[in-house]
Amino acid sequence: MRLIILSLVVSAVAGYVYDTKWYTVPLDHLNFGTNKTFKLRYLINDTYWDKSNDGPIFFYTGNEGDIEMFAENTGFMWEIAPKFKALLVFAEHRYYGKSLPFGNNTYSDLKNMGYLSSSQALADYADLLMHLQQNRTEEVGTSSKRSGARYPVIAFGGSYGGMLAAWFRMKYPYVVDGAIAASAPVLQFTGMVPCEAFSRIVSSDFKAASHNCSDRIKASWSAIDRVSATADGLKWLSSNWSLCSPLKNAENVSALKDWMVGMITNVAMLDYPYPTNFILPLPGYPVQEMCRKILTKEAQNSSLDQDKALLMSIFSGFQVAFNYSGNSSCLNVKVQSSDQLGDDGWDYQSCTEMVMPMCSDGNGDMFEPKKWDIKKETARCKATWGVEPQPHLAELLYGGYRGVSAASNIIFSNGLLDPWSSGGVLQAPKGSRVISITIPEGAHHLDLRGSNPMDPMTVIETRRLYGKVIQKWIRNVRPDSF
Amino acid sequence: MRLIILSLVVSAVAGYVYDTKWYTVPLDHLNFGTNKTFKLRYLINDTYWDKSNDGPIFFYTGNEGDIEMFAENTGFMWEIAPKFKALLVFAEHRYYGKSLPFGNNTYSDLKNMGYLSSSQALADYADLLMHLQQNRTEEVGTSSKRSGARYPVIAFGGSYGGMLAAWFRMKYPYVVDGAIAASAPVLQFTGMVPCEAFSRIVSSDFKAASHNCSDRIKASWSAIDRVSATADGLKWLSSNWSLCSPLKNAENVSALKDWMVGMITNVAMLDYPYPTNFILPLPGYPVQEMCRKILTKEAQNSSLDQDKALLMSIFSGFQVAFNYSGNSSCLNVKVQSSDQLGDDGWDYQSCTEMVMPMCSDGNGDMFEPKKWDIKKETARCKATWGVEPQPHLAELLYGGYRGVSAASNIIFSNGLLDPWSSGGVLQAPKGSRVISITIPEGAHHLDLRGSNPMDPMTVIETRRLYGKVIQKWIRNVRPDSF
Repeated sequence: MRLIILSLVVSAVAGYVYDTKWYTVPLDHLNFGTNKTFKLRYLINDTYWDKSNDGPIFFYTGNEGDIEMFAENTGFMWEIAPKFKALLVFAEHRYYGKSLPFGNNTYSDLKNMGYLSSSQALADYADLLMHLQQNRTEEVGTSSKRSGARYPVIAFGGSYGGMLAAWFRMKYPYVVDGAIAASAPVLQFTGMVPCEAFSRIVSSDFKAASHNCSDRIKASWSAIDRVSATADGLKWLSSNWSLCSPLKNAENVSALKDWMVGMITNVAMLDYPYPTNFILPLPGYPVQEMCRKILTKEAQNSSLDQDKALLMSIFSGFQVAFNYSGNSSCLNVKVQSSDQLGDDGWDYQSCTEMVMPMCSDGNGDMFEPKKWDIKKETARCKATWGVEPQPHLAELLYGGYRGVSAASNIIFSNGLLDPWSSGGVLQAPKGSRVISITIPEGAHHLDLRGSNPMDPMTVIETRRLYGKVIQKWIRNVRPDSF
Repeated sequence: MRLIILSLVVSAVAGYVYDTKWYTVPLDHLNFGTNKTFKLRYLINDTYWDKSNDGPIFFYTGNEGDIEMFAENTGFMWEIAPKFKALLVFAEHRYYGKSLPFGNNTYSDLKNMGYLSSSQALADYADLLMHLQQNRTEEVGTSSKRSGARYPVIAFGGSYGGMLAAWFRMKYPYVVDGAIAASAPVLQFTGMVPCEAFSRIVSSDFKAASHNCSDRIKASWSAIDRVSATADGLKWLSSNWSLCSPLKNAENVSALKDWMVGMITNVAMLDYPYPTNFILPLPGYPVQEMCRKILTKEAQNSSLDQDKALLMSIFSGFQVAFNYSGNSSCLNVKVQSSDQLGDDGWDYQSCTEMVMPMCSDGNGDMFEPKKWDIKKETARCKATWGVEPQPHLAELLYGGYRGVSAASNIIFSNGLLDPWSSGGVLQAPKGSRVISITIPEGAHHLDLRGSNPMDPMTVIETRRLYGKVIQKWIRNVRPDSF
């Protein structure tokens, strides 16, 4: 009974009421070949803000999707805003959600897409913050720039948004006083971490739920190959897995496997202890739930041969992932997540600067062996977007390990259930001024979500620490007196 | 006798022998609308480099002109390289010297010019340094990125090059370990310093040479107006001032005055204690020399009326500035400096992001009153280049005072004779990790020049300090061990 009451209180706190505003930014902050501008969307709530007394700005650096989804899944900011008397701002990343520089033609014309880059997004955020500070500097008078009158700013972000929060502090330390970078794989780039680490973590999540479960998933790849080797088998699989488009050839089978890998990855990422509707509608502890289905006796229909019986149990597991809501009439291999995520935009980014090598070897993980093949990826990117991946650009722009070493006032957090922790900062560099936190029971930026009675103690403690460190960062914001 | 010997030794040390190399960089590091590349020029000397033992890289961040001119006028780097066993690299700024992305069409097609920006120049330098570090990281093996094997890097720059050296350290602290930013007016932007400060310093340089001198210059503006009010007067002025193009109208007269202001400014900037050939060929202490001519009795021809007598003496002074070599057959108002400086490029930069408000009031300075008029400047920039100045962009990108406060390992130096000290960091922010040095007898980045027997003691001490601080920066480069 107590649990339910607590849960109601939390959802009341998480009212998540905001105004939607637009701020005009240059399409290109860093070159002068175009003077085109567009409107960037941001969400704002000043309910708790102590504006006249230097109340801080809590600024979410939006990632690859509709900013409303991130505002609604970053309850932590909403929960601490009253204590800090903070202004809440959630800024949308250009080219996502409703912040489309060329409207409906944003993605249809490849020329228009060139300005989708992390450098431009960070300049958008700095520009917006300069605008939000304006009233404060005007209030204090013309000498404000010398006396340093401004609201303290703390950046928050998870995943790619967490990378942006960290990079924002690194590149614009005069705009943002500290950053909470949750589950931010800033090291997931060429030559920095082994490419197989990601797949290993996904697999170990399933192995932790049950060895049998990960073994069955591992066995399913060759079972699919054997069943789909015949026309009858293709038909059987299409029908019994309720595929929206029936399988016709090896290419379709390969696409189905890619979808499976993607869904498994999403479920591992989103292995929260309670039901959520972020990226995918999922039950609490979805890895366990998926494994429970995969291992139920009923699914292992004894009238079928071994391969088909295995595949029926696997399908039963996948239903947890793609049809938890019960609304899907068929399995669409083209859909892996909420349509609020900008999959096209992210694919383009991964084809330009966000080149993150991934691979599997089938030994340390439960997947088919797959090498990281930059040549193949380059060909794919050229064919899809007309661009070539630049594997070393993120290192050039943000410095990888060295960028972290040279930074200050950043907390990097990583949940150890989260496959993205493979590219996370799991230890702060010696002598550096950043903090690293690992949350053993945490999935993908669980720490940024609102409190929940099911939260593990480690995430509760992590959030408590954030409060203390943010307080310290704010206290240390000095007037820049010369 | 002793002076002459010393002088010979110095010029032998300043052999300034280098290899010219080219490194291919993307035209746009920060967007993906083009995959065009071009070749950036850099000069390199490894004579003193202890390559196998982590000898540092001394890296000049080239400014708005031919890099050879800066290599040849930055003797300080050459002089300390042997002691530090350093590699010397002088990188040319894109769009200047021979680093022209579109060859002869670089400036003729306005579309081509869009990629001339400080952000792109800094990315070029980071890219080039990644390339120069490559051998070192390969040598140490695949784990190099974690173990941090790299050569320490110190950036050097004067004037705009000094701004770039400072910004390079601010934006890429993982690429450059420290920066000597000499005479870098990083605060010469809208709202940061009074626009009249620059003109006041120029005037006080002339006033220090002689009150009479600055008074005569101040009186010359209205004398020119009176003389040029008649057709005969225009003819007289054109002929007696040996103008290459005779004055025909008020516009020509105004252009002549602008030229005079520019030359006076250059002479103040370049008020070195010994003859130099940097930007302009000039005698030692050229302000004094110019004033000596302006005040000589012979120039004040008694057969002329007062205005004309004054103007003859003024012209005699200007000959020091525009014709010290004796090679100019006439005064060309279109030429204010060496053709090694990229005046067009800099004008374009001042019309986009390097918008530096300047004004004079005729009271605190010896010039005609002239307000800073951003509207007029915008109209001029639109007409000339088709672009609009963005007065707050430099603040957005580099943070002005706050950018300096948040930075570390930068020495800002300013000569107090140098008008550009108006926008310099004359005091380090309290509690910051940057150093500020003022050199009372110094002109524009005198400290970066090679030693000279005429050097004032303050610049000798400044250079000694640089050596100590650079040593400390290099010692503190830790492997980025995680």
